[in-house]
Amino acid sequence: MALYDSLFSQLDVASSQLLVTDNDFKDPEFRQQLSETVNSLLALRVVPIFNENDAISTRKSPYFDSTGIFWDNDSLAALLALELQADLLILLSDVEGLYTGPPSEPKSQLIHTYLKEKHDDMVTFGEKSRVGRGGMTAKVYAAWQAASAGIPVVISSGCVADGLQRVMRGDHVGTLFHRDAHQWVDLKETGARNMAVAAREGSRRLQGLTSEERKSILHAVADALLANEAIIKAENDADVELAQMTGVSKALVGRLTIKPGKIAALASSLRTLADMKEPIGEVLKRTEVAEGLTLEKTSCPLGVVLVVFESRPDALVQIASLAIRSGNGLLLKGGKEAARSNAILHKVITEALPKSVGPNLIGLVTSRDEIPDLLKLDDVIDLVIPRGSNKLVAQIKATTKIPVLGHADGVCHVYVDTAADLEKAKNIVIDSKVDYPAACNALETLLVHEDLVATGGLEMLAFALQSAGVTLYGGARASGILKLPRASSYHIEYSALSCTVEVVKDVQEAIDHIHEHGSAHTDCIVTENHITAETFLHHVDSAAVFHNASTRFSDGARFGLGAEVGISTGRIHARGPVGVEGLLTTRWLLRGSGQLVNGDKGVQYTHKKLPIGEDEGLAALATANQSLENGNSAVKTTSNGAVPIEISTEHISIVLL
Amino acid sequence: MALYDSLFSQLDVASSQLLVTDNDFKDPEFRQQLSETVNSLLALRVVPIFNENDAISTRKSPYFDSTGIFWDNDSLAALLALELQADLLILLSDVEGLYTGPPSEPKSQLIHTYLKEKHDDMVTFGEKSRVGRGGMTAKVYAAWQAASAGIPVVISSGCVADGLQRVMRGDHVGTLFHRDAHQWVDLKETGARNMAVAAREGSRRLQGLTSEERKSILHAVADALLANEAIIKAENDADVELAQMTGVSKALVGRLTIKPGKIAALASSLRTLADMKEPIGEVLKRTEVAEGLTLEKTSCPLGVVLVVFESRPDALVQIASLAIRSGNGLLLKGGKEAARSNAILHKVITEALPKSVGPNLIGLVTSRDEIPDLLKLDDVIDLVIPRGSNKLVAQIKATTKIPVLGHADGVCHVYVDTAADLEKAKNIVIDSKVDYPAACNALETLLVHEDLVATGGLEMLAFALQSAGVTLYGGARASGILKLPRASSYHIEYSALSCTVEVVKDVQEAIDHIHEHGSAHTDCIVTENHITAETFLHHVDSAAVFHNASTRFSDGARFGLGAEVGISTGRIHARGPVGVEGLLTTRWLLRGSGQLVNGDKGVQYTHKKLPIGEDEGLAALATANQSLENGNSAVKTTSNGAVPIEISTEHISIVLL
Repeated sequence: MALYDSLFSQLDVASSQLLVTDNDFKDPEFRQQLSETVNSLLALRVVPIFNENDAISTRKSPYFDSTGIFWDNDSLAALLALELQADLLILLSDVEGLYTGPPSEPKSQLIHTYLKEKHDDMVTFGEKSRVGRGGMTAKVYAAWQAASAGIPVVISSGCVADGLQRVMRGDHVGTLFHRDAHQWVDLKETGARNMAVAAREGSRRLQGLTSEERKSILHAVADALLANEAIIKAENDADVELAQMTGVSKALVGRLTIKPGKIAALASSLRTLADMKEPIGEVLKRTEVAEGLTLEKTSCPLGVVLVVFESRPDALVQIASLAIRSGNGLLLKGGKEAARSNAILHKVITEALPKSVGPNLIGLVTSRDEIPDLLKLDDVIDLVIPRGSNKLVAQIKATTKIPVLGHADGVCHVYVDTAADLEKAKNIVIDSKVDYPAACNALETLLVHEDLVATGGLEMLAFALQSAGVTLYGGARASGILKLPRASSYHIEYSALSCTVEVVKDVQEAIDHIHEHGSAHTDCIVTENHITAETFLHHVDSAAVFHNASTRFSDGARFGLGAEVGISTGRIHARGPVGVEGLLTTRWLLRGSGQLVNGDKGVQYTHKKLPIGEDEGLAALATANQSLENGNSAVKTTSNGAVPIEISTEHISIVLL
Repeated sequence: MALYDSLFSQLDVASSQLLVTDNDFKDPEFRQQLSETVNSLLALRVVPIFNENDAISTRKSPYFDSTGIFWDNDSLAALLALELQADLLILLSDVEGLYTGPPSEPKSQLIHTYLKEKHDDMVTFGEKSRVGRGGMTAKVYAAWQAASAGIPVVISSGCVADGLQRVMRGDHVGTLFHRDAHQWVDLKETGARNMAVAAREGSRRLQGLTSEERKSILHAVADALLANEAIIKAENDADVELAQMTGVSKALVGRLTIKPGKIAALASSLRTLADMKEPIGEVLKRTEVAEGLTLEKTSCPLGVVLVVFESRPDALVQIASLAIRSGNGLLLKGGKEAARSNAILHKVITEALPKSVGPNLIGLVTSRDEIPDLLKLDDVIDLVIPRGSNKLVAQIKATTKIPVLGHADGVCHVYVDTAADLEKAKNIVIDSKVDYPAACNALETLLVHEDLVATGGLEMLAFALQSAGVTLYGGARASGILKLPRASSYHIEYSALSCTVEVVKDVQEAIDHIHEHGSAHTDCIVTENHITAETFLHHVDSAAVFHNASTRFSDGARFGLGAEVGISTGRIHARGPVGVEGLLTTRWLLRGSGQLVNGDKGVQYTHKKLPIGEDEGLAALATANQSLENGNSAVKTTSNGAVPIEISTEHISIVLL
């Protein structure tokens, strides 16, 4: 109490201790006066602090086998909340709330809303270790007592700085107990984590299918899109109409609109994707580790990918088809302006998925506030791909521990060398800047060799850009020579018809400039000197480095990657334009016949590189799926330890070397 | 003042306003009384709050062209700090402190310690935009006035919650101004960011060398290690002696000791690494995008890698040689118990680096408190590799935005199927658990098919483990059958001679158990049924999945990857045992002859896969280096735009297709 008193007094708040016993509550008069006392104290802005009057308590049984009215602090709190008709009871614990298992286990989930029907089994009362430390069982029991009598209860952590404030603000922390929870909790629980878990489950089922089956899903989705073109169009029209009514910018309406022929184009790209080489289970490397011990590195899906995209509803189809092709589970979060378009596209696609996979492979997050929740799920989401503005990408990168595949900025350079063909240079510079100025692969800084100042090349390039409607800003040297306003920085992504121009001494200074001021996205040299070109190509440390070609080629489709996942300026996992391979990871498969390590004396290591046949991974996968297709019959019929000869010999030739 | 008053009173602190004018300070008596007044107020625990008495001030010129004694709040603060001989002056701003450029630019660095000689040029006074918002110029001027008179000053952010406390605690925040800074700041400034920047510079120089030159560096390092074996041994002995004196555990001393023959072994593995295939510049993929437009995906170094390792000084050599081989810059942070060993190894290695690369390629972080600083540098460090305990890995993962390559836990399973050869199963189970129980690839949970309960197979396996000294814990089913104490969870990494045993219905239940409770590190099936084996291999979603082989094979050296970077349980970038390829990323090189995108009407896309010849990347790199070797002479001699024929034709055949 002294501690409470001193802490409260630091905040200039008075507090008052009230000691009660079990017995007191048996007296109806006491119960009435209790309310009056507490209300008077609160009116005087005094914080009442209750505790059991241990010194005079006559109660013996410490836990709830007791016939008492309360038996510990938690039940006292619940009782007082009821007596005083509290608006909310907060029980503080040393863990975040109630978990589905021991809080230290990574698979244990915090239960955000307690459902008696669902969680009563999970939370084994009496078995303390099952529900974590610190008497969680007693807390849950007390909480449910109060909640079922109509007082909402939150169990949350008392060990975080603003724990109480967060509960009072209504943040999504701790575990909420509410009498009516069962009426609305189902909706809530399908969000975030559960969607991710369901998507991973779907991904595993998808991997269990044959390559042909996965291919046919993509064709089925294409068929479904074409069959539902009219309704998709109608829903998209509704979005567009609402956007126009609410005064959304013309550019945004343009991106939102599904243009005529778009559905057909999407269907056709789905079929192209269907016909591409099977990406899953490819044997990338094979090594004989020792005699009879064969190691394979094979491709496999990442798991669950979260895609956050703005406006363009066609992005949903693209990304969903990539996920199906690569065997990944997917969570989609689209912009609210495309809500109806996204909903119908999601419905059409998931209904085209076979029952063996299930519609949960692709989840569409619809509520607005679930993005922060999704970004917290680094244990069940493997990759986030933001498709939208730089701001969106930067925001997501700053707020999540999940790896992000994307480009925060694209400050692309074209360096025009002394040995450049100036006509070529002019065309490349114009195309790089003007073809689509808002693109991330558009030119932002033009670097020109100093020799071209005297020859008039610099002036010619500047004039060409200005004639194409480009506003120029100059660096330290160019601004003086060309009488241009000074650029405020060398790291500007205009995303518009503007461009920085600067003069450099030679290719080395151009490389240094790009390293210092660029964003390592796409940089280009224009020169006819092949040595200079190769110098630039090998020494510029950017995701894409070009010689004599427009920076606008930096794009998955133009690179021939098929559908594009995105462009990454990160250096880890995938870099530059990323196709399906950005959604894949690898697994090591080792097949032996009982080999042991035994302090590295168990085998004679050979580490021989072995050849890889065409489609071997697929054949092995077909074998693997056999037992699942037959409902594990292969496994079950061999319970005597023997192997059905006709099956095993057939496959030994494929899987063993 | 009313706001200050109300805020302070919430903390039960009294405050007092003191209004002064420029004129007052001209009166020596005032200056004496001022000190007395302030000291009296502080003795009474009243916080004095100074401001200019605007109402009666006669001063006109607002800025420091004035002849006044102070001219704004910042100079008033500096003046008061001097008059009162303050211990510290803190100037709060809306940015973190003083930056080398506009704080919004990514390349701008926060200056932690101001050096007049170094930063005076950088921070252009009078040009407000150059140093950010909010009159930073005035703050810097005032700060330097006070600092040069002997009062330490910190400029830091007033917009973070515990900004003042952080400064008072001596945290590494804001910009410090100190009269004596030049005496010690050089040391400080070589830390953290500058080391990383220097390492990247070194990496770029290393990439500029030929393959042969990089190879010879590794041989030179090997030679240097052998030549300095005696001194390395002596320094290591000193570390070991100190560790023994300070009562360090025997296991730790064991890891710390460089055993006889270790230096020779390290030298030999350096030579092996030297002879491996050149990892940089490999052409991984080549596509004809359109006629005359050729795209290559090539391998290149990640950039700068931070390795945090505990105890083992030989890890320093291993990791440094991997970095050299893969062309990466490196920051090393070793345990303090190996300080002298690490220092001598670092010295020997960096002295063996050629001048063209420079010793800063590999930085050794020696001070203790720089790890948190290093982990903040996500813009200049590309990857962190923790080599040490699970705790270390988990801590680093939790506190950095830099991608981390490592395994937080290794809960490995062996599933013994109904169709297992039980003798094989026994040996694999024993080897997996006993060969090195503390390893991350050691068996932690044994799953046994339920058929083996009746046949006695389960009992045999349990007895074999117990006979090998392993303490067993049972899952829900096995604990009853085998009369074992119940395991507190299915997700336990014992890292000791202990193991969980559980019974499962079939291979599918084993797979589900591993997905639910495992750590996706290494899992193994023992069976003679190939269909069941392939089912397990293809459906267990772990980094390494084995059939009939000890889990202990999950290791870079045993996999034949050469030197091991680490084992990753992450799914992004690299998975499982990781060799040199974990330190590489890719770049896209596009070579054209003036091709434009022009709304995708510029070229006819062909997207033809092209063959890749042996060592083509190396030949192109050699071309690239020619101009650098000749001091850009190739570039300079062609200033007329012509290409020296004899060189260009020679290489066109290699780089163009």
